[in-house]
Amino acid sequence: MRFETLSVFPDLFAPYLETSIMGRAQARGIFEFESYDLRDWTHDRHRTVDDAPFGGGQGMLMKPAPIFEAVRDISKRHPARPHVVFFTPCGRRYDESVAERLSHEERVLLVCGRYEGMDERAYELADERISLGDYVLTGGELAALVVIDSVVRLLPGALGDEMSARDESFSDELLEYAQYTRPSEYEGRGVPEVLLSGDHAAVAAWRRRNAVERTALWRPDLLDGAELTEEERALARAVIESSGEGGAK
Amino acid sequence: MRFETLSVFPDLFAPYLETSIMGRAQARGIFEFESYDLRDWTHDRHRTVDDAPFGGGQGMLMKPAPIFEAVRDISKRHPARPHVVFFTPCGRRYDESVAERLSHEERVLLVCGRYEGMDERAYELADERISLGDYVLTGGELAALVVIDSVVRLLPGALGDEMSARDESFSDELLEYAQYTRPSEYEGRGVPEVLLSGDHAAVAAWRRRNAVERTALWRPDLLDGAELTEEERALARAVIESSGEGGAK
Repeated sequence: MRFETLSVFPDLFAPYLETSIMGRAQARGIFEFESYDLRDWTHDRHRTVDDAPFGGGQGMLMKPAPIFEAVRDISKRHPARPHVVFFTPCGRRYDESVAERLSHEERVLLVCGRYEGMDERAYELADERISLGDYVLTGGELAALVVIDSVVRLLPGALGDEMSARDESFSDELLEYAQYTRPSEYEGRGVPEVLLSGDHAAVAAWRRRNAVERTALWRPDLLDGAELTEEERALARAVIESSGEGGAK
Repeated sequence: MRFETLSVFPDLFAPYLETSIMGRAQARGIFEFESYDLRDWTHDRHRTVDDAPFGGGQGMLMKPAPIFEAVRDISKRHPARPHVVFFTPCGRRYDESVAERLSHEERVLLVCGRYEGMDERAYELADERISLGDYVLTGGELAALVVIDSVVRLLPGALGDEMSARDESFSDELLEYAQYTRPSEYEGRGVPEVLLSGDHAAVAAWRRRNAVERTALWRPDLLDGAELTEEERALARAVIESSGEGGAK
């Protein structure tokens, strides 16, 4: 898989993507990455990418022309047409199902805005508009890194043989069960007895039950999409009722 | 304001936080940043921070002891007690109101997990658990950068005099209106006439109406929290109805 970014800060990505799991995945050829500098598609001496908004207002907007020229030009540089992603609060909320879908793309180009925003016409270039959440960042670069990180970890082999990308929160619409490692007692804090029992069936049952309880407590909204037995649904309802005001929203 | 991170990859933060708006804000003393290496609180030759989960399963967990020792030790290094944040899918969904609240803290310590997760007992140290969204990252470092970036831009002076952090999507529970800059026609794509009119009242009215329309189209869920006139509510309803299946969810 090939990731590309278009940004006025093209050097922000490599330090993260060359470290740890991302670095190893790149080294092993699991994904490739290339960062483009939007200013390479300007034609004035100051390499201007921003301008004042029509109608007045604070701050500067990203001009449409460099973005159009860059996306068209970059698209032609490799055989596969890129899936072009723009980040905007008007976009689809990013979640694990979007990450999963993107992980099947051959080539993804992430266009990173800066300043007060982008000329609206530029969004026409987007195959997909993504919103990372209901908060504002100074630019799209961190959003691009979040997308690359969460997608790459789903690619076969990215996490190494010993880890599974799927045995996690959201992969089955439940939060993950609580986990513990040594010591079995730390400053008086123990771990659930069953986890020390060596009884694999009992451990599996405890984990499933714990996942249902935690989801009911902290993310009851996820339960609608989860496949639960009748018994599990009853457990979830009991947790929600006993937590007082209908669960911690 | 002071941000600190606790992580096994302490070098991942500086490249981002020393660039652009974050770099200038640090240089001007608007916030300070310090990164701690969790391995400094281990006591074995291999500086081990992870161990296998009790009860079996794939991957490794972060051991409780180094985290307890590190958070306690770091807390004492400055006069103000830090507001300690852990990242977990069980946490509160991060949004602009959380960013706003954190921007009033004197000192925030962001604890970044890695591997398959953290020993559940460590979460006891958290003043607050935050979830960035319903997706999985390889570690908490990007989540920490997202929090720092979105909080710092709210600090007085961080964006410079010419920009406003508040005139944005989510600051009034509406998506921001569409924006345009020169040229007024780009390859046949124009901009709304009113924005070229110089009529400030008409521009303001168009922008407000556009923000309501866009929110109704793309994020109707936000409308409940927005302060709208009767006329604006009617407009929003009309947009939702004409968009077919009750708005683009």
